Amino acid sequence: MTPHFTLNATHTHAFRFSQADVADFARVTGDNNPLHLDPDFAAQTPFKRPIIHGMLGASIFTKVLGTEFPGYGSVYMGQTLEFLRPMFVDTDYEATFTVQSINPAKHTAEILGELRDKQTGKITTRGVATLMHREKINI
Amino acid sequence: MTPHFTLNATHTHAFRFSQADVADFARVTGDNNPLHLDPDFAAQTPFKRPIIHGMLGASIFTKVLGTEFPGYGSVYMGQTLEFLRPMFVDTDYEATFTVQSINPAKHTAEILGELRDKQTGKITTRGVATLMHREKINI
Repeated sequence: MTPHFTLNATHTHAFRFSQADVADFARVTGDNNPLHLDPDFAAQTPFKRPIIHGMLGASIFTKVLGTEFPGYGSVYMGQTLEFLRPMFVDTDYEATFTVQSINPAKHTAEILGELRDKQTGKITTRGVATLMHREKINI
Repeated sequence: MTPHFTLNATHTHAFRFSQADVADFARVTGDNNPLHLDPDFAAQTPFKRPIIHGMLGASIFTKVLGTEFPGYGSVYMGQTLEFLRPMFVDTDYEATFTVQSINPAKHTAEILGELRDKQTGKITTRGVATLMHREKINI
């Protein structure tokens, strides 16, 4: 099912990460900052326990925009990211994407993405993506 | 060796990605957009061959900022990203990071990052990171 990709259209995506996902992300990207991997190190920080990589949370943007909304064939042109609150493993989150502007001549769109802790309702990460899709961004 | 983290300080990091890295990133993030994975699909696009995920290139930001400059203990607060040109596997790139501003009271800094194709010298990705490090961002 491909959502209709028009101005003000929204799309939601539920997700959660495990500590194994964090370890995989650290290995693939090379970011082995102990803030994400070492409970003893994290205990000495204001967070008290390991937080997931901000970029791992932000990977939901590339996943959803590249595979669901607008989906396969999307070309990523830009992204802003505000890491507003720490994110943790084994926690339910929901991403909401909203089409903010469309440029049909250029086949580009700006899409606001917000990641929200499902239990607290608080936004943990917010950002605006700019992308191009020749077939799906036309109107 | 920890670089001195002061205003206008710079740090460089050479890197390249393989198709196996792209497949790993697709698996970890769930972004299996065929633009990155399928040569036949990519051949039908203006790029002619698979391009790496923009967020995989951008993972150099989290890697270097989290592990080298300023390094372990960095807390990521924000990131802008402009994906200016496509990036490819088996290609030599160099990232240059420059400290643009420092707020010693808040232990925060803004750091410009630029990814450059080593052969052509052209910038492929540019962005500004905002981060906090209580020990290393003081002056």
